[in-house]
Amino acid sequence: MSEAGCVFCPMVAALEKEETYRASGGGVSRRVALLPTAVAVLGSDQYYAGYTLVIARRHATELYHLSDAESTAYFHDMLRVARAIDRAFSPRKMNYELLGNTVAHLHWHLFPRYADDPNPTRPTWENEHAVKRLTEAECVKTIEAIRTQLT
Amino acid sequence: MSEAGCVFCPMVAALEKEETYRASGGGVSRRVALLPTAVAVLGSDQYYAGYTLVIARRHATELYHLSDAESTAYFHDMLRVARAIDRAFSPRKMNYELLGNTVAHLHWHLFPRYADDPNPTRPTWENEHAVKRLTEAECVKTIEAIRTQLT
Repeated sequence: MSEAGCVFCPMVAALEKEETYRASGGGVSRRVALLPTAVAVLGSDQYYAGYTLVIARRHATELYHLSDAESTAYFHDMLRVARAIDRAFSPRKMNYELLGNTVAHLHWHLFPRYADDPNPTRPTWENEHAVKRLTEAECVKTIEAIRTQLT
Repeated sequence: MSEAGCVFCPMVAALEKEETYRASGGGVSRRVALLPTAVAVLGSDQYYAGYTLVIARRHATELYHLSDAESTAYFHDMLRVARAIDRAFSPRKMNYELLGNTVAHLHWHLFPRYADDPNPTRPTWENEHAVKRLTEAECVKTIEAIRTQLT
């Protein structure tokens, strides 16, 4: 279920058991939710408030490598989180992206886009910005806002 | 099912009946496939060979605005196309993106990423490049390569 050398595999394994995971580099990942096929993790850069990763619990690199049942379940886990972010933060638009160019372990990026977005018609990647790191209390508050809306 | 002012709605309506659609601006859109919930359209910029849009047949702006049955069907239509592109062109990685920042009508971007990609670890949006427009014959060939692999 996991692959040697994948940086997401040990994080997922840890977040299946604990609320937080500290990588060897020191960065802390925080679980938003544990779902049937995925772990939702708060994005470390909260420039887009509520930005969350929905990471597959098992290692795979392409959606079409999964069985239909598994890819459907993973898609619905992602949608549950997207809907919860929408309810918690009322963005103007959601961006759903599964790329995997750097870490090929399946993960959705959910970027909520807001009315005050400086580059609203373009992908987030074209908007260079300073990383917005939250305090621990702010992280907990953001996570709680999303969790409350998970149905 | 369609929305006034949406530039994708008339294109979708046309491509449900015809292989090509000429927008008022002159650009030609070419159908790759008509699927139960979506029309697959060849991307006009083929810098990423096989780049295809999978556009929902009905107007909606968020995946979570669809019923579970409809979002699942739309997801599977997209995956069928992604798998066909993979079989046709053997990319190193697929990027799946549903953004809708400019045109909010649901559409997946399927960007195949190749071994010779100049910016392989980053999203396509960070790689400025000259648009690669194919000749009509090249478009037909690309579409046929994908269609042959659609199962």
